[in-house]
Amino acid sequence: MSKPFEERVFRDPVHKYVTVQHPLIWKLIGTREMQRLRRIRQLGTGYVTFHGAEHSRFAHALGTYEITRQLVSRFGREDDGHWSREDDLISMCAALLHDVGHAPFSHSIESVFGEQHEHRSVRMITEYSEIERVLHDVDPALPSLVARVLQKTHPKRIVSSLISSQLDADRMDYLLRDAYMTGVSYGAFDLERMLRVIRPFEGRIVVTHSGKHAAEHYLLARYQMHWQVYFHPVTRSAEFVLRSIFLRAQHLWQQSYRFAHVPKGLHALFSGSMDNESFFRLDDAIVQAAFDAWRDERDPVLADLCRRFLDRHLLDYEWMQAYDEQHVQWRRDQVAKAGYDPSYYVHIDAPMDWSYAMNDDARGDSPLYVWTPEGALHEMSTQSAIVRAIQGEQRGALRLYAPRL
Amino acid sequence: MSKPFEERVFRDPVHKYVTVQHPLIWKLIGTREMQRLRRIRQLGTGYVTFHGAEHSRFAHALGTYEITRQLVSRFGREDDGHWSREDDLISMCAALLHDVGHAPFSHSIESVFGEQHEHRSVRMITEYSEIERVLHDVDPALPSLVARVLQKTHPKRIVSSLISSQLDADRMDYLLRDAYMTGVSYGAFDLERMLRVIRPFEGRIVVTHSGKHAAEHYLLARYQMHWQVYFHPVTRSAEFVLRSIFLRAQHLWQQSYRFAHVPKGLHALFSGSMDNESFFRLDDAIVQAAFDAWRDERDPVLADLCRRFLDRHLLDYEWMQAYDEQHVQWRRDQVAKAGYDPSYYVHIDAPMDWSYAMNDDARGDSPLYVWTPEGALHEMSTQSAIVRAIQGEQRGALRLYAPRL
Amino acid sequence: MSKPFEERVFRDPVHKYVTVQHPLIWKLIGTREMQRLRRIRQLGTGYVTFHGAEHSRFAHALGTYEITRQLVSRFGREDDGHWSREDDLISMCAALLHDVGHAPFSHSIESVFGEQHEHRSVRMITEYSEIERVLHDVDPALPSLVARVLQKTHPKRIVSSLISSQLDADRMDYLLRDAYMTGVSYGAFDLERMLRVIRPFEGRIVVTHSGKHAAEHYLLARYQMHWQVYFHPVTRSAEFVLRSIFLRAQHLWQQSYRFAHVPKGLHALFSGSMDNESFFRLDDAIVQAAFDAWRDERDPVLADLCRRFLDRHLLDYEWMQAYDEQHVQWRRDQVAKAGYDPSYYVHIDAPMDWSYAMNDDARGDSPLYVWTPEGALHEMSTQSAIVRAIQGEQRGALRLYAPRL
Amino acid sequence: MSKPFEERVFRDPVHKYVTVQHPLIWKLIGTREMQRLRRIRQLGTGYVTFHGAEHSRFAHALGTYEITRQLVSRFGREDDGHWSREDDLISMCAALLHDVGHAPFSHSIESVFGEQHEHRSVRMITEYSEIERVLHDVDPALPSLVARVLQKTHPKRIVSSLISSQLDADRMDYLLRDAYMTGVSYGAFDLERMLRVIRPFEGRIVVTHSGKHAAEHYLLARYQMHWQVYFHPVTRSAEFVLRSIFLRAQHLWQQSYRFAHVPKGLHALFSGSMDNESFFRLDDAIVQAAFDAWRDERDPVLADLCRRFLDRHLLDYEWMQAYDEQHVQWRRDQVAKAGYDPSYYVHIDAPMDWSYAMNDDARGDSPLYVWTPEGALHEMSTQSAIVRAIQGEQRGALRLYAPRL
Repeated sequence: MSKPFEERVFRDPVHKYVTVQHPLIWKLIGTREMQRLRRIRQLGTGYVTFHGAEHSRFAHALGTYEITRQLVSRFGREDDGHWSREDDLISMCAALLHDVGHAPFSHSIESVFGEQHEHRSVRMITEYSEIERVLHDVDPALPSLVARVLQKTHPKRIVSSLISSQLDADRMDYLLRDAYMTGVSYGAFDLERMLRVIRPFEGRIVVTHSGKHAAEHYLLARYQMHWQVYFHPVTRSAEFVLRSIFLRAQHLWQQSYRFAHVPKGLHALFSGSMDNESFFRLDDAIVQAAFDAWRDERDPVLADLCRRFLDRHLLDYEWMQAYDEQHVQWRRDQVAKAGYDPSYYVHIDAPMDWSYAMNDDARGDSPLYVWTPEGALHEMSTQSAIVRAIQGEQRGALRLYAPRL
Repeated sequence: MSKPFEERVFRDPVHKYVTVQHPLIWKLIGTREMQRLRRIRQLGTGYVTFHGAEHSRFAHALGTYEITRQLVSRFGREDDGHWSREDDLISMCAALLHDVGHAPFSHSIESVFGEQHEHRSVRMITEYSEIERVLHDVDPALPSLVARVLQKTHPKRIVSSLISSQLDADRMDYLLRDAYMTGVSYGAFDLERMLRVIRPFEGRIVVTHSGKHAAEHYLLARYQMHWQVYFHPVTRSAEFVLRSIFLRAQHLWQQSYRFAHVPKGLHALFSGSMDNESFFRLDDAIVQAAFDAWRDERDPVLADLCRRFLDRHLLDYEWMQAYDEQHVQWRRDQVAKAGYDPSYYVHIDAPMDWSYAMNDDARGDSPLYVWTPEGALHEMSTQSAIVRAIQGEQRGALRLYAPRL
Repeated sequence: MSKPFEERVFRDPVHKYVTVQHPLIWKLIGTREMQRLRRIRQLGTGYVTFHGAEHSRFAHALGTYEITRQLVSRFGREDDGHWSREDDLISMCAALLHDVGHAPFSHSIESVFGEQHEHRSVRMITEYSEIERVLHDVDPALPSLVARVLQKTHPKRIVSSLISSQLDADRMDYLLRDAYMTGVSYGAFDLERMLRVIRPFEGRIVVTHSGKHAAEHYLLARYQMHWQVYFHPVTRSAEFVLRSIFLRAQHLWQQSYRFAHVPKGLHALFSGSMDNESFFRLDDAIVQAAFDAWRDERDPVLADLCRRFLDRHLLDYEWMQAYDEQHVQWRRDQVAKAGYDPSYYVHIDAPMDWSYAMNDDARGDSPLYVWTPEGALHEMSTQSAIVRAIQGEQRGALRLYAPRL
Repeated sequence: MSKPFEERVFRDPVHKYVTVQHPLIWKLIGTREMQRLRRIRQLGTGYVTFHGAEHSRFAHALGTYEITRQLVSRFGREDDGHWSREDDLISMCAALLHDVGHAPFSHSIESVFGEQHEHRSVRMITEYSEIERVLHDVDPALPSLVARVLQKTHPKRIVSSLISSQLDADRMDYLLRDAYMTGVSYGAFDLERMLRVIRPFEGRIVVTHSGKHAAEHYLLARYQMHWQVYFHPVTRSAEFVLRSIFLRAQHLWQQSYRFAHVPKGLHALFSGSMDNESFFRLDDAIVQAAFDAWRDERDPVLADLCRRFLDRHLLDYEWMQAYDEQHVQWRRDQVAKAGYDPSYYVHIDAPMDWSYAMNDDARGDSPLYVWTPEGALHEMSTQSAIVRAIQGEQRGALRLYAPRL
């Protein structure tokens, strides 16, 4: 006879505790694919600007799970009867696993090599992996049920909405966590209040009328974090150096250049043969150690870029109010004259953001609805001048990056 | 003509801002040896227990500098005239650089390979390095002046005390930072209050009489963090696996085993030829990436230990109130029968701590004095029953580690 | 020979410490007029909704002083030379004293009896009072110099701006303090950041370009606090009961009704003979004790209203999207039929707010300017869609208050 | 048919929300006796030292209720079956009502007039009052059942322990609340952790072995708050002035002195005829308003003492390491020569504290037990050198108070 599962907790700086009450969740956390997320930073190159931002995707996965756990425990009490115990568990699994397919520094790796984390997460859950085995042991249908939440093809749309919508556990955790770790206070909206005003309603996640101002506050936290943290010019500079490293390494690989050392995970990236096992072997440490080895490579471009990345000699930037072809060309020529290949050393950044989308956005996230006392649903931007102000595409000034000469 | 240096700041989650007002500090932060500290975790294996504890020694170095900056700016106002502008700068440099010689996971590396971070820090400051060059450019005597602070041979003892004593900027920053990042509240003493009650007095750092309770609170924070965080059994388990990896790899090296991959920094460790340049190439990423490569090594002990470390399949532990030779031997036999070499898989931990030492301790840190209104100095433990309670050697129960069979 | 003044501190929950470095400030805090502010709640009837909101105007006065102290100590370092030591002191005095003329529950008392706190503050500083004496002892011109800051007739406009403008120490303290005490997180903008981005420039207080988002965040904190806290319907309900008490008592007084007890301060209010001495005798305790005595008055209206206020049996409210004369009349009739005089028991509230005014507002507060790197000043709303969204008059739905029948 | 009770919340700065899930609790909060607690400061004269300490006993009552609510909701899940639904409700009622019999500035009033808050609380619950009626309406036995919890005669000792023991909801709330409001960080122990390690066991409240350090931290918070806040010399000075006012007024009353104004509540105190109705009419505002009126009394001692209290011209103090009869007499003579009656103007304070009592203490509070994994209970001081250090009677230096001459 087996002992009943005893509640276990993780200390968490954002939520105080992450509470595990179900053995399946405990086992999933223990899989090697989840443990790998400890070695991938949540904010990619963000740490070069904000030295506190060393937190891992593992911490964020636990936090997303914890918010979901709290939400569904309320839904159980408040729902009109359409919410089931099984929905609880599937929601919590999906929350925990939603980012398991993230590559290290995934913005760069995805843009250069075409990896795609949503797709990879699904494969990590449904194809050969410890995760798949753990889920399968409970119920052979479970891997694909959980995957369908991430793919937004789960029969209950609301389950997907918990993990991915304008008001999801994913965003709520990362805003709080990134704010806490960077020391930037803008992201610190009132989570307790949000948990109190979110309701399941006709297959959607809605906000009660009395929670309108809290939802405004949350959307503004997103807006502020985007511009203050996520698009910070120094972070973006590191990102461009990183991309150039990957581009150069890929170029050399295609030229049959002989690297002194290419770790397993990168090998699969270069050769376009990425299976789950190779992907599992790809993390921040692997990438950084490869860069360290490449400091000594004969190719001067690769060696220089790796030194710049590791020693934080990044590219400088200047602002452009609008795209100025002539100026960009002049800068490229100047850089070339100094001996740098502009295709690796000159970059233009056009930061833009959809802090709030009135219509279903690229991720397929549905808009946010306010639920009035009379039972009507109103899309959030019709209720708030502030939300209207940040809705739609937001663009910042252009930045032109180049080395200090 | 050069522009005056403009004050610059780093966002810091613990101190809100780290403020740089002197160009020398700015340049030191930019050296590659300081940037390397971004790739070394402050708490070594602490992150396997507390998922928030991913913060780097770089962050702690900035924090130690910031506390020192605040302390010396008060000293300038309050000192009896023996404190000089130059003391300010040397104190701040020493605070920033005090941990620059830390190896990755230094507890393990120091115990296995005999590296010693205090010694290495001095070499990183005085021998060939970017740090040495930056200091030398200001004044050729500066490297050795700063090094003498760390060696406690600086003519003004109080300057060393700022960085290393019972009440130093080093400990004050790490207690606050480790508490913040782990989410454990015990370390959160009242820094503002401490800064107000610390005074320079006759070459010592003392605490005013009215600050006695604040100092008690700070010493208790240390005591609590030692037992709740630093000696946590799971963290220690990871530590033992780590040591076994290093011991096994060293053993194989001595047997002329052919590793598929040994990075530069580890090569120097194994061969005992560690110069500054090789040391610079040693960080957490290098170590973790080597472990990742060693998952595939032919040696089954090394491969198994590396998998355990990375996938967090650590050793289990049991408590022993006292050392029980018979039981330990039984456990070793049992482990051996299961096919594991007990010299790598069975460990005994005897956690002990000197939360407060009345006499000069092993680090040469002088005790803490309370300065009475009458101008007398009383050693702290004579003033507080609580401090007496935690003074001297503290021992916890023994723990016996072994694999789950 | 006198001892130099030793720095003194007050523990403050919002700023950690309020630091007094000048004997004049210390003496002003000790005057009985300043001590009286301990007996006047900062948020008037706010405590009936938010039980934490018991904080006094004294605490807010210290906090406004502390923010001003921090601002002017930066100005001394950064100003173009137009800022003097004397400006420091006058600014700090004005900050400390700016609310000294507040009556208890001043919204109600001002609306019923025509008292006016700005005017009274000036009288408390320049006419017979301990404050006047303390200032006069330092310099006979000082009382009027300080008063002119509050009157906005001080020759340096920027000094007034510190205490009263879109971005003043007054608002910065009360937003943080009210948020802290109510437990509502919306008001918690980033003070440290604001202090870093505020600059004196050509007689104005401006915000540097890099501080634009911080200023947005601060203006949104104001907006949120207005709607979430200051206009809370229950707080407003208490406010209307309070006004009715004062109106009824005034009416009875005019009818030569014989009250069992009228304290000195109220006597002066009723008779319109309010001098500084009588004003000094008017505080929250006096008002509440009078209401307690009036529970037993023969006049049933006065007795009932006082019981409602003290026992928190306030008026209920309903929303009106627009003013509906017919409905209001119906409600008044209904209330009258139940035996209540509608002139005391039915109230309409039309909350509105100027969270940010582009033009000089009613208080004469100038708008907020962003200072670009090129040295240009741009009015804030031209720089931010969010500020445009909350600029100008904001109106909430109407509320109709009446007793539960 | 009645609607089901909808969960309601109060915003609370310490617990974020106080949640009411039972209509009885809601009705009790609405009684006029509970509302009266809004007009009584939790820390009596503490606000003269810590200007943030204006929080009311009403806030503390809600907080004590909230902690109890969280504790009993865990007990329901974890108990061995002896805990019932009814125990939940009685515990929560007792927590909410435990301080309802507190007089304003109760230390002074209890010492001068012999009022006793525990006794009065019982009367307020069981004799004529709105509270009694609300409880009686649910069940005629309820008033006395709740009262027996406060009297520690409830059949289940553990129910009383929740509200009054070494580790009760009362102390946990006031330490956190007083720390939050004063801005003193020492009281901020880790409530979430405590709630996790407290267990009901054989009719006691015990702490699990893993919670030993958390309990140490909590006991130290008490110790620190006692010496840093509760026994602060300035707070005690105000306390002595207050007692002298009451003593003088009582003396005058006994001499048939004709006061210009004596409010109802004080009348009953003086005449020793305190019933619930008169007690209800006694609060901080009444007392302070009486003092304000007494500023103008003909009796110079009473008038002077009242002015001192309200204008914060308190008594100065000096330290005495031991009682020095000769010095005290000299001080009394000096004060008498200056025209002050030493019986009102000279006071000796001998602060002492029982931060932790190994045996049942004066309040009848049982000691704290640690529950080992083996199922044994060990009294806390046998488990912790730190607790031994603060156990038993703690004495501070004596203070001698007298007017500045």
